[in-house]
Amino acid sequence: MNTPVPNPRIRRSVASLEAYVPGEQPKVKGLIKLNTNENPYPPSPRVAEALRDVVAADLRLYPDPTCLALRTRLGELHGVDPAQIFVGNGSDEVLRLATRAFTQEHGQAAMFDPSYSLYPVLCAAEEVRMAKVPLADDFSWRNPLPELPPDTSLFFLTNPNAPTGVLYPRPAIEAFAAAFPGTLLIDEAYADFTDTPSDYAAFAAAAPNVLDCHTFSKSWSLAGLRCGYAIGSPDLVGALYQLKDSYNLDRVAQTLALAALSDVDWMRANAARIRTTRTRVAAELLRRGFAVTPSQSNFLFVRPPAPATAAGLFARLREKNILVRHFPASPRTAPFLRVSIGTDEQMDLFLQALAED
Amino acid sequence: MNTPVPNPRIRRSVASLEAYVPGEQPKVKGLIKLNTNENPYPPSPRVAEALRDVVAADLRLYPDPTCLALRTRLGELHGVDPAQIFVGNGSDEVLRLATRAFTQEHGQAAMFDPSYSLYPVLCAAEEVRMAKVPLADDFSWRNPLPELPPDTSLFFLTNPNAPTGVLYPRPAIEAFAAAFPGTLLIDEAYADFTDTPSDYAAFAAAAPNVLDCHTFSKSWSLAGLRCGYAIGSPDLVGALYQLKDSYNLDRVAQTLALAALSDVDWMRANAARIRTTRTRVAAELLRRGFAVTPSQSNFLFVRPPAPATAAGLFARLREKNILVRHFPASPRTAPFLRVSIGTDEQMDLFLQALAED
Repeated sequence: MNTPVPNPRIRRSVASLEAYVPGEQPKVKGLIKLNTNENPYPPSPRVAEALRDVVAADLRLYPDPTCLALRTRLGELHGVDPAQIFVGNGSDEVLRLATRAFTQEHGQAAMFDPSYSLYPVLCAAEEVRMAKVPLADDFSWRNPLPELPPDTSLFFLTNPNAPTGVLYPRPAIEAFAAAFPGTLLIDEAYADFTDTPSDYAAFAAAAPNVLDCHTFSKSWSLAGLRCGYAIGSPDLVGALYQLKDSYNLDRVAQTLALAALSDVDWMRANAARIRTTRTRVAAELLRRGFAVTPSQSNFLFVRPPAPATAAGLFARLREKNILVRHFPASPRTAPFLRVSIGTDEQMDLFLQALAED
Repeated sequence: MNTPVPNPRIRRSVASLEAYVPGEQPKVKGLIKLNTNENPYPPSPRVAEALRDVVAADLRLYPDPTCLALRTRLGELHGVDPAQIFVGNGSDEVLRLATRAFTQEHGQAAMFDPSYSLYPVLCAAEEVRMAKVPLADDFSWRNPLPELPPDTSLFFLTNPNAPTGVLYPRPAIEAFAAAFPGTLLIDEAYADFTDTPSDYAAFAAAAPNVLDCHTFSKSWSLAGLRCGYAIGSPDLVGALYQLKDSYNLDRVAQTLALAALSDVDWMRANAARIRTTRTRVAAELLRRGFAVTPSQSNFLFVRPPAPATAAGLFARLREKNILVRHFPASPRTAPFLRVSIGTDEQMDLFLQALAED
């Protein structure tokens, strides 16, 4: 076997990078797509109206580089100063900039295992080490605080966690933030799907070392728009501004995100429907012998009853045009499937396909 | 005087970063905005049509992470394989990723002086050194090849150059690419405004070490959209894909950029109008005693006749609600103003304001 010769023009760490593999975005029509935690319901009708009102001629002009209108509205929503908000081209950009800004050269970051598989990719790209702190067998995290390498300057905490759906207790998070000398990044991508409202925005705004991250991709039904944001101390947020591309969010995205924010009720109603469906599907899977991790997100993390395996079930669902997510690379996640909550009709077809299995 | 205490949670190089300052994007209406090289003409009517046709409900789904439709059309336009094209969230993203990918740790990049002031900012963010090679007094570059520090692995070549507007001779660029062991990045942001077509796409696609960068922000009248792209060898382009955010370009931007590309004639007609206006305004400024750098771009780089100064003229134009660009930080650029070419009506008002001065 030939070992490929590395191209000397490319940064050594880049050549050896394993890029993050997002869930499949199939071109085939008619698939039931339960694999990337997209919202099955459309965004607010106000987004469609705002889209109709965009003046194409205005696109010749650069967008507002700091998304002021959007930050002002987000500040009202979360009860924080707009100056403490950073808006990015999806959470992806926010997380990448945070990885860069809140680690030192060849520094150390940490996360729970399992959690969002993008974080180690971001650390590798920034040439930063990543420590993984194992969660309990039931994927819970309680005190004591996670044991971390002494030079850990950034901890990625997904709450509710992905791919497990578990919501951590607030006292544990607050105690961790108080004890941790580095930056605690709370990724609240799924926080609008919790049964009891969860929001660390005000907590982050008042703390010196907490960055609270949100996205329009899940609860707001705008994954196609690429808009995420973070709330934190002026120093932390300022560091993200220092590093961002000059005009990181386009005019249309700023306009449509603002339109979505004008209809919080729409988002909340969709999140409530998804919670109801989640409860029903979780109960049915439990009844059928699946292990179902208690989920506070818009997906379920489930282990099929023996002799079925996650890999086998994934493949057979795929044949029936139902896409779910399987993370075979880690022993912690390999026995499980992550199933996004779709419409009731989609979930009935999913349950029916399982019953035929 | 108090020296601010650096926040230990923030990367040392970030805390000391001087972020790029883009040209002012004023909120005031009625300004004549000749300061950021935006196109004074709107994008093709097909962009407006495509905007009307965007289905808001589809925004719940993630975009195509590799912009396949857009790359296919760009491949046709430039006569290159779509697999050798990378599409980014504006040229900003392309240039940032190239800075990261084509330098080694604490490595060395280079550029001409003067040139686009974003490049040193990108290098500082990546903790890479930047060497500046002085251009001749008339801002031309001819042989011999630029003298570079021996470990230079990336050279930023803007062609036509910004802020001068000068187009470099093709033989000089080709000789440089052949002799330079590193990566030659040719930034063709303004290449659609040259009197004779200039395009290094096919050259870059065939070379091992040339990345050719383009943008929709200037000739395509889509600065508000954030879309840029690069063409190069599979290795170079592959390195950009390794580093990019998973979904770096939103659905609407991909759709609208594709619509713009379906109407190349519209873009070319606008570029031709801008060239005609440029020729007329340059001649008039010469007649009035200005030094006018020969421009092949959508702006003029001009030095007012003594006793007028660039700084004084900038301020007096600003009072008359005419915004141009002044780069006072460098002795090479401080005596000049950069004036974007607007509509004929806007340029007449600009010339009239100068005459009153």
